[in-house]
Amino acid sequence: MKKIWGDYEVDSHVNEYTIGQDLQIDAKLMNYDLMATSAHVSMLHSVGILDIEEHSLVQNAIKILKLRCSKQGFAIPNKYEDGHSYIEAELIKICGDPGKKVHFLRSRNDQALVMLRLFAIDILKEIDTQVQILQKSLSTVSSRHRGTHMPGYTHMQKAMPTTVDTWIESFADALVDIRLSSNVEAVLDQNPLGSGAGYGFVGQKIKPDQKHTSKVLGFKRVQKNPMHCSMSRGLYESMVLSQLYPYMVLASQWASDNLLFTMEEFEFVSLPDEFTTGSSIMPQKRNYDVYEIMRGNQSIFWGYSTQINGIIAKRTSGYQRDLQLTKKPFVEACEIVLATIKMWDKTVKNLKINKPNMKNAMSPNLYATGNVNDLVSEGATFRDAYIQIKQTIKEQL
Amino acid sequence: MKKIWGDYEVDSHVNEYTIGQDLQIDAKLMNYDLMATSAHVSMLHSVGILDIEEHSLVQNAIKILKLRCSKQGFAIPNKYEDGHSYIEAELIKICGDPGKKVHFLRSRNDQALVMLRLFAIDILKEIDTQVQILQKSLSTVSSRHRGTHMPGYTHMQKAMPTTVDTWIESFADALVDIRLSSNVEAVLDQNPLGSGAGYGFVGQKIKPDQKHTSKVLGFKRVQKNPMHCSMSRGLYESMVLSQLYPYMVLASQWASDNLLFTMEEFEFVSLPDEFTTGSSIMPQKRNYDVYEIMRGNQSIFWGYSTQINGIIAKRTSGYQRDLQLTKKPFVEACEIVLATIKMWDKTVKNLKINKPNMKNAMSPNLYATGNVNDLVSEGATFRDAYIQIKQTIKEQL
Amino acid sequence: MKKIWGDYEVDSHVNEYTIGQDLQIDAKLMNYDLMATSAHVSMLHSVGILDIEEHSLVQNAIKILKLRCSKQGFAIPNKYEDGHSYIEAELIKICGDPGKKVHFLRSRNDQALVMLRLFAIDILKEIDTQVQILQKSLSTVSSRHRGTHMPGYTHMQKAMPTTVDTWIESFADALVDIRLSSNVEAVLDQNPLGSGAGYGFVGQKIKPDQKHTSKVLGFKRVQKNPMHCSMSRGLYESMVLSQLYPYMVLASQWASDNLLFTMEEFEFVSLPDEFTTGSSIMPQKRNYDVYEIMRGNQSIFWGYSTQINGIIAKRTSGYQRDLQLTKKPFVEACEIVLATIKMWDKTVKNLKINKPNMKNAMSPNLYATGNVNDLVSEGATFRDAYIQIKQTIKEQL
Amino acid sequence: MKKIWGDYEVDSHVNEYTIGQDLQIDAKLMNYDLMATSAHVSMLHSVGILDIEEHSLVQNAIKILKLRCSKQGFAIPNKYEDGHSYIEAELIKICGDPGKKVHFLRSRNDQALVMLRLFAIDILKEIDTQVQILQKSLSTVSSRHRGTHMPGYTHMQKAMPTTVDTWIESFADALVDIRLSSNVEAVLDQNPLGSGAGYGFVGQKIKPDQKHTSKVLGFKRVQKNPMHCSMSRGLYESMVLSQLYPYMVLASQWASDNLLFTMEEFEFVSLPDEFTTGSSIMPQKRNYDVYEIMRGNQSIFWGYSTQINGIIAKRTSGYQRDLQLTKKPFVEACEIVLATIKMWDKTVKNLKINKPNMKNAMSPNLYATGNVNDLVSEGATFRDAYIQIKQTIKEQL
Repeated sequence: MKKIWGDYEVDSHVNEYTIGQDLQIDAKLMNYDLMATSAHVSMLHSVGILDIEEHSLVQNAIKILKLRCSKQGFAIPNKYEDGHSYIEAELIKICGDPGKKVHFLRSRNDQALVMLRLFAIDILKEIDTQVQILQKSLSTVSSRHRGTHMPGYTHMQKAMPTTVDTWIESFADALVDIRLSSNVEAVLDQNPLGSGAGYGFVGQKIKPDQKHTSKVLGFKRVQKNPMHCSMSRGLYESMVLSQLYPYMVLASQWASDNLLFTMEEFEFVSLPDEFTTGSSIMPQKRNYDVYEIMRGNQSIFWGYSTQINGIIAKRTSGYQRDLQLTKKPFVEACEIVLATIKMWDKTVKNLKINKPNMKNAMSPNLYATGNVNDLVSEGATFRDAYIQIKQTIKEQL
Repeated sequence: MKKIWGDYEVDSHVNEYTIGQDLQIDAKLMNYDLMATSAHVSMLHSVGILDIEEHSLVQNAIKILKLRCSKQGFAIPNKYEDGHSYIEAELIKICGDPGKKVHFLRSRNDQALVMLRLFAIDILKEIDTQVQILQKSLSTVSSRHRGTHMPGYTHMQKAMPTTVDTWIESFADALVDIRLSSNVEAVLDQNPLGSGAGYGFVGQKIKPDQKHTSKVLGFKRVQKNPMHCSMSRGLYESMVLSQLYPYMVLASQWASDNLLFTMEEFEFVSLPDEFTTGSSIMPQKRNYDVYEIMRGNQSIFWGYSTQINGIIAKRTSGYQRDLQLTKKPFVEACEIVLATIKMWDKTVKNLKINKPNMKNAMSPNLYATGNVNDLVSEGATFRDAYIQIKQTIKEQL
Repeated sequence: MKKIWGDYEVDSHVNEYTIGQDLQIDAKLMNYDLMATSAHVSMLHSVGILDIEEHSLVQNAIKILKLRCSKQGFAIPNKYEDGHSYIEAELIKICGDPGKKVHFLRSRNDQALVMLRLFAIDILKEIDTQVQILQKSLSTVSSRHRGTHMPGYTHMQKAMPTTVDTWIESFADALVDIRLSSNVEAVLDQNPLGSGAGYGFVGQKIKPDQKHTSKVLGFKRVQKNPMHCSMSRGLYESMVLSQLYPYMVLASQWASDNLLFTMEEFEFVSLPDEFTTGSSIMPQKRNYDVYEIMRGNQSIFWGYSTQINGIIAKRTSGYQRDLQLTKKPFVEACEIVLATIKMWDKTVKNLKINKPNMKNAMSPNLYATGNVNDLVSEGATFRDAYIQIKQTIKEQL
Repeated sequence: MKKIWGDYEVDSHVNEYTIGQDLQIDAKLMNYDLMATSAHVSMLHSVGILDIEEHSLVQNAIKILKLRCSKQGFAIPNKYEDGHSYIEAELIKICGDPGKKVHFLRSRNDQALVMLRLFAIDILKEIDTQVQILQKSLSTVSSRHRGTHMPGYTHMQKAMPTTVDTWIESFADALVDIRLSSNVEAVLDQNPLGSGAGYGFVGQKIKPDQKHTSKVLGFKRVQKNPMHCSMSRGLYESMVLSQLYPYMVLASQWASDNLLFTMEEFEFVSLPDEFTTGSSIMPQKRNYDVYEIMRGNQSIFWGYSTQINGIIAKRTSGYQRDLQLTKKPFVEACEIVLATIKMWDKTVKNLKINKPNMKNAMSPNLYATGNVNDLVSEGATFRDAYIQIKQTIKEQL
């Protein structure tokens, strides 16, 4: 149980309680830590801490560790407090003394910051790519059904006529809004590595060269104020999830619309058999679980967002350990968005429109407002025309 | 209890329950409704529904109603279902038949949408102006204290030296992030008026000219798909609050920092007497309630955001009345942000820095990491230097 | 702007920001404050602070103030910080010197605590009475429709047969659960008056007699530890709302069920016209807004609960002003529950069951599981029977 | 990818998306499923579906599966949809035809309900035991420090004197409240097994004997209405978490108090070295991460609670798949409470009180209210005495 900083054993329950599920999450993020560690090591070489041989030795060791990272990440043994300590320990084991130089001019704080930022940049890109694919699918499918009439509902009651393409394109339009609204990527594009424990290396003899690591890692600029770096832990996670949240709302609304319209009482739309599931006791069942999980995942996402926002709401300036707990909800929430957009896209691509059922559902009451319009076009005031049509409907009942 | 649509009396409890606190909120928003009503009426004139005299009659009536709107709005009598119905009723009362033409080619749905959008655009601008003022204050105050040392804390324990300007500027930097990150204003800048009840006026003889109202109201573009308009109710409110939320987190963090640093045990900073409050029984008290309310308002804001997000998570496409309940939390949350930014600015402008207390707090342990740096500069590996300094500290205890 | 504690003017913006909407909420609670103030004054008399004449003078003044409290409470002038200060000021104005003795041995902290506790006890009783009325209505209506068949759905698809009374009674059963589950009333039944500012009057010459006020106010016991009293501010509010929350979930589920079953595609149930609302442009509409607001109010309640929970999550021991902000969400959330239960009851009492439509909806697929049961009764294993029926259904398609 | 109900392959992405992390959670719950399966099988025997040999065969197979359950549960292979299907498949594999009878008269719905209920009953008991241990620790430690003075704070400022035992006992008193307030255990104590898919086995030839399984599993009563059973999925989870939530609030408040009081500026209390952690770069650090994680876990818990409440808020009557997503947050939230109470207890047992520092902190301003009391005891009115002491303090500045 001896720690990197440790001259004493930490109580095993304290150790277990404070680490929680962090090692599993770190395992997923290790490739980003190694990427940043490599940049940091390159910087240490450039400022003369590691000579050319030491540098090459350490970089090779990092490469070995990277190879061990599969997509699921590599397991971090229980005796380490976190992935960061594990990496240092491994580098010391492989390289000896040069490994002991690696953690100079950084702290686990900026190490976590840069790791999470690289992760966020990557997954936001991946999500955006999927959103663009979805936009294309929505527009392809809607153009295929242009002008197909279906009832429009308000208050869950038949309101006015609409069309399948209007319905489907409304989601595409909202995706445009979301992509337009936010620019959190520009915020993420600043390098926190070198901010150390949140106070930089002010007044110290040797200082990190943050421009060097920015260049290696592809950051546009340095995040200069180290307290600003520290403050962005949790806050940026919150901002990223805020940007992604509307996707989950829309996916849930898409799912809810389809859950309604696939009911036997409507059968406006359907999905192929392989998208549905059955029941363990009811042989006739054909369920749209996929939409239910999509709808439920909106709540799961929101709860994760709530976790992060609850934690950052309690903090004062300067790193505090509760921030560690923002890692899991952040990673899981991002992954849920990615999976949900992909699944949404599949349901769009496989959506079957049942035209005859929609046609049958176009009952006369949907045209009452049009009838009012007719009367106005013949000279009535709107309100009088409205009352007149209302009276006619009443008499017909 | 007779309604605009009404041929029967609504049960009084149903009426009271469904309206709730909506009339009070509508009263605050009436000036935006009147602004949009005026644009709508101008459009009705342009498409020939109102002739020149009728148009002038109705516009004058709108002006009269506008004059009745003070900053707090005007009271809407209880017998009306909402402000929209009240406006129509007043216009009919004042103008007679031309008033009965006013609601043609619109619905209370698009009327509410455009009213809220105009409100949101306005208050976002006002908030942004206040944020810029705050940015300036932070930078003025921080430059006044450049280089003044104070302890930096991590885990609530003394960590490393920092300076007053680093602390204060970290907030200014985060404000830059927030302003950079979001672009929800561009999303709001589309005109939903003319989308009617969420299905437009498809297939009807007379249609609204949305370009006309866009021009009058200053919208950059028309929000074309009427189901997209309907979908944006609640969703845009959520997106706006998401953009504003980080301000509340930062304000709360500023408040928490100051609540700590104004404690007798620190006294690093203070505010003038007129910013503090006293106790009803403890004559010695001088409390920083202003920071506590600032901190608490972050939670109030988040709860309002939760209300909106809870409601939109349940909906299917097409307007549903629960969306009415998003109005109050939206308006109140926006107002809280505005008031909080203004108050934050006042606390910055009046912040007193207690330099001697900060100096006294600069204990030697803050320099331990610097000492490690010194040893590294003399050739030690970082990890060995760290252990050596740790050992020295231990021996001194 | 001079305060009760005040030797200086508080900045007007600080004053406005810290008070917020508190005066409006206090106005609703003043009768409870006056009730407790009367008990406190009686105690002050019993320990010799107020003589018999002073006591009678002050009690009369309290009566006068009580008369001014209508159900909506009486307005508290803006220059007071809160209702508590206003009461003291009024009593001094009416009674002179005896009024200046009233605030002895209490603080605004325990004054607020006891006021809110009395409010909570009252409204919980009122809610419980309404829940019992609702239970009776559910059971009356369900017994009226015993054995009326209707389709049971899972995953929004027809699953198995059920009956109207099973559906309606499931809500009654859940109400029994909620009433059984919680006992927060017993927690509330302890008197915090006398805990002063959260530290009692330890070591002071004259102390409050908490047994006296408990007896007058009808509390079962004294809440002895003053820090425990202080800690219960916000916490008890959270606990009360936790107890009430399931009512809102059930009301929302009742509303959602009915919103679905009143759709034209089902028409299983309906409400009389006076429970429905119309549209400003669609003359044919008949909307169930009442259910939509019921469903939406679940989210409003949850958001208020979130506000309180966010605030108490940030605190350390000892009163802090953010706790003031828990008052509004608490009062509003309780009122929403009361109004919602009443409205739910009205919808139950007026529910019309459309038997023919339900009968028509009893399609053969609902009996597939029964068919499996038949095969098992003839000796098949369950899984084999299931597969056999599934095969038959498939062939019939 | 073939399912228990399956005559076709489910799309692999749909399969992965709908299952999500459910198998890992089910693995933790398998022992409870097996316990209920055993009771169900015993009932099937009693109603004649399984003869004595078949029954003994299946019970033995269940025992084998139980042995495979370690505390962490056993892994469920990916090709199964859930633990329930896996159990049936294993029983069929081991027992042949008798295994195919096991799922008769139940559904995965009531199987999940009873499994989760048994889990909840167990962990609530375990939590309550730990709470009682904590209560004892708090009372032991507080009695050890009875009468030790420390400053009481309000608004983060010194307010009035208090004592260490008052502080510590306030937490013990609040634990009494929480245990008193709730009775959700009584709600859980009803057997949902036999409710099938939420509509029972109404009108079918063979019916489950729910009294039998109740007796075997130790439930006090049968949960009769099958729609009530179905409704309780998610709802009871929400009710259980509501009961537990105050524990997390208190733990967080305990943590926050201690984070403040362990700051160098106070040093009122401390924990032994093995409860603290160090820094990777600052050799002097000794951090109370354990309190920070305790504080953060309140937010994690609340977020999980939010996930469940978000999901149940969207449902109509009848099982829907999103309810599956309530399992993970429920199990994790319960486990967090258990771990947190245990850790809290450890910090209490190891708490060191620094009496001299507390004594030094007892500054004169803490006694100002006592001075007012003195003046009142000499005949002054309270408000006049207050003003007089305030004046004196002012003059001394």
